[in-house]
Amino acid sequence: MSEHDHDHDYDHETDRQVTEAQRAALKLANVDESERNAALNSIADAIREREDEILAANAEDVEAAEGMLERGEYTQALVDRLKLDEAKLEDIAGMVESVAEQDDPLGATLEARELDADLELYRVAVPIGVIATVFESRPDALVQIAALALKSGNAVILKGGSEASESNRILYEIIREATADLPAGWAQLIEAHEEVDRLLELDDKVDLVMPRGSSDFVSYIQDNTQIPVLGHTEGVCHVYVDSEADLEMAEDIAFDAKVQYPAVCNAVETLLVDEAVAADFLPGLVERYEKAGVELRGDETTREIVDVGAATDGDWRTEYGDLELSIKVVGDVYGAVEHVNENGSKHTESIVTEDTDAAETFMTGIDAASVFHNASTRFADGYRYGLGAEVGISTGKIHARGPVGLEGLTTYKYYLEGEGHLVASYSGEDAFPFSHRELDAEWTPGERSGE
Amino acid sequence: MSEHDHDHDYDHETDRQVTEAQRAALKLANVDESERNAALNSIADAIREREDEILAANAEDVEAAEGMLERGEYTQALVDRLKLDEAKLEDIAGMVESVAEQDDPLGATLEARELDADLELYRVAVPIGVIATVFESRPDALVQIAALALKSGNAVILKGGSEASESNRILYEIIREATADLPAGWAQLIEAHEEVDRLLELDDKVDLVMPRGSSDFVSYIQDNTQIPVLGHTEGVCHVYVDSEADLEMAEDIAFDAKVQYPAVCNAVETLLVDEAVAADFLPGLVERYEKAGVELRGDETTREIVDVGAATDGDWRTEYGDLELSIKVVGDVYGAVEHVNENGSKHTESIVTEDTDAAETFMTGIDAASVFHNASTRFADGYRYGLGAEVGISTGKIHARGPVGLEGLTTYKYYLEGEGHLVASYSGEDAFPFSHRELDAEWTPGERSGE
Repeated sequence: MSEHDHDHDYDHETDRQVTEAQRAALKLANVDESERNAALNSIADAIREREDEILAANAEDVEAAEGMLERGEYTQALVDRLKLDEAKLEDIAGMVESVAEQDDPLGATLEARELDADLELYRVAVPIGVIATVFESRPDALVQIAALALKSGNAVILKGGSEASESNRILYEIIREATADLPAGWAQLIEAHEEVDRLLELDDKVDLVMPRGSSDFVSYIQDNTQIPVLGHTEGVCHVYVDSEADLEMAEDIAFDAKVQYPAVCNAVETLLVDEAVAADFLPGLVERYEKAGVELRGDETTREIVDVGAATDGDWRTEYGDLELSIKVVGDVYGAVEHVNENGSKHTESIVTEDTDAAETFMTGIDAASVFHNASTRFADGYRYGLGAEVGISTGKIHARGPVGLEGLTTYKYYLEGEGHLVASYSGEDAFPFSHRELDAEWTPGERSGE
Repeated sequence: MSEHDHDHDYDHETDRQVTEAQRAALKLANVDESERNAALNSIADAIREREDEILAANAEDVEAAEGMLERGEYTQALVDRLKLDEAKLEDIAGMVESVAEQDDPLGATLEARELDADLELYRVAVPIGVIATVFESRPDALVQIAALALKSGNAVILKGGSEASESNRILYEIIREATADLPAGWAQLIEAHEEVDRLLELDDKVDLVMPRGSSDFVSYIQDNTQIPVLGHTEGVCHVYVDSEADLEMAEDIAFDAKVQYPAVCNAVETLLVDEAVAADFLPGLVERYEKAGVELRGDETTREIVDVGAATDGDWRTEYGDLELSIKVVGDVYGAVEHVNENGSKHTESIVTEDTDAAETFMTGIDAASVFHNASTRFADGYRYGLGAEVGISTGKIHARGPVGLEGLTTYKYYLEGEGHLVASYSGEDAFPFSHRELDAEWTPGERSGE
């Protein structure tokens, strides 16, 4: 218990931790970029130096998980995700260093406006405050989110899965000790499972929650908190092959979007084909898909052209996350737009066409975070978009949408610099007018640009 | 019931309305600026032309409300807010025209980046989708929010107070008829009180809710929905008079911030004074406040200097919204920052000082949407900030903070223009590198900038 809190009784340990994080957040917001980066590099160094401790703790988690696996309570995939080794730890340390190398997301003047002579308004990027993360088994999520939070000046509450409790505890200890120069309590680890429900209730103290895990897990968090959630649930993405498509290009894109990495949310789940080209296009692609082991299901028209299983209504809304794909023949680009808006998850959609009008109809008509023309849906990713460190992918529309960079962990503050300006002067009959002149200036505390 | 819905059974009329609004939103997103503005001007014209109908309907509401007033169930203030007259209708029509005159918040390219040769990413401003508003008695709120939604290409669900039901119904009818050229169902009126709870449940269909009313009302909405809320609850704003303040300026600012319009959320509620200047500063200001009828309460140190009532702990967190003010003497700027972060509502805070370091400590140390230096808190307002039409003031930190312009009713979409680009080419051993070169280009559907 911190010195401040001797006079407080908290029903939940989580309340004390979140209150301490709130206090730290106010200080962390004003820690210089160089100090935040130095702290990140200390974390990376400490992960390398204390490799043996981390691997020993992780071995305990893995051993326990293998016991659960034998009893059929865990899957092999879960055990694999849990397991750390030297190479993975080096990747994690490298990731922390790469976060340090990113441009500072804080302090930039986003907008500057003269309201009247010597009265200047600045909109400046600042941290959000307290960010919480709740994640399933991968212990690297703990380090990644702590690094992103620190880079963006936010305090962070970390809650991992119980299956990784030993790994999480040592990684948290390392982070805490390596950042001893930062405001105390900026990172907090929650261990007890029953504290998650309490954490999700603290919507007046926690500013943003970032769940990491399966779609069901993210949906559970969304349904059980009033804290804004930055995360993504499912990706039911489409590729539409238009009547004016370059069919060779279309085949390559449809193949890449499914086969290159089928487990991810930006892989295609349903292929839509214009009826004018379906008979020409489908046989070659289906042969290629089948060679790659893709299980195909189609609507009636598709099945008149190629020999695939029958798609049910449920297929149009399913994220297979695997080498499975449904195919539907549509009348035209409008039919494609209607199908996507009805069944898609607003994630990533792509049209293949040489017709600019069809591209415009598709791209502007579909409500999704990312809409592509003549490119694979798999490009929807913060790294590929050039956003730098990827904070996550958001399937919400508010605050941040699609792949989200460090900007997603910031908000802004308005700073107004005057010299005794009163609103009374700008009201009533002899009101002064406002100039509302845009300035090309950065905020300097206590000063006016004099532009 | 629209043609589309003959095959649907909805348990709630609201579900049908929201579904219809969702469909309309997809179309409205692509209606040209000129058509949206023409529709806004038609609304303004129709309000003027049908003045008699509106005033007749409003007279029914006012009569019923006066009955409630006699029975002590309504306040005079409520009846006053409800009442429309020729001048107020002209103001409303003028407001709609001024929304039409705003810059288009849609279609702007916010960011453009080359990912590789002929692969270009554009981030473009688009409408959010379906916005709902729930508002207390003022019928002008219905027209204002419908106008802001239309300007920003969003469908809108309108739910007013039952005391204004006749006024709301005729205003809604006028809006609907004046915008018959727009996608049908873009605006929906909900009348039954019990439908509000249903509306607030539809977080998968309604993208944003904007409550208009008292702090308690906004808090109620926030606590009862998982839809993101854009609104403001209370404003407990401070003016801090530093030891290095120009005391004449400080007196004017403290006076303006309280007296110029005490009922609004950006008026000051607590004055903080540095102990080094309290004895010099307070007597003159207190005399001026008392002449203006301000009721004052102070902490012990304040009461040793001036003869005012005693402030209780509750005073430091109270939004008086009236000619009342609490005064506290603090040790220095750090004491002021601590008091504000502990008791403020993160709305608007102001420091008066000639010391740049003190200004920086205060402005960067306080977590609030707006922090001012040598200016009255009353400047915190979308019109004064030069944001154009004010959508509202947000006390949240996510998506929009402080005074919010039309930008607050938009989100963005990523458009990617390629010519058959595959992710496979950018993966594995011989992966192509990304160029990630910023472009100075606007998105043109189906084309690449060729920059």
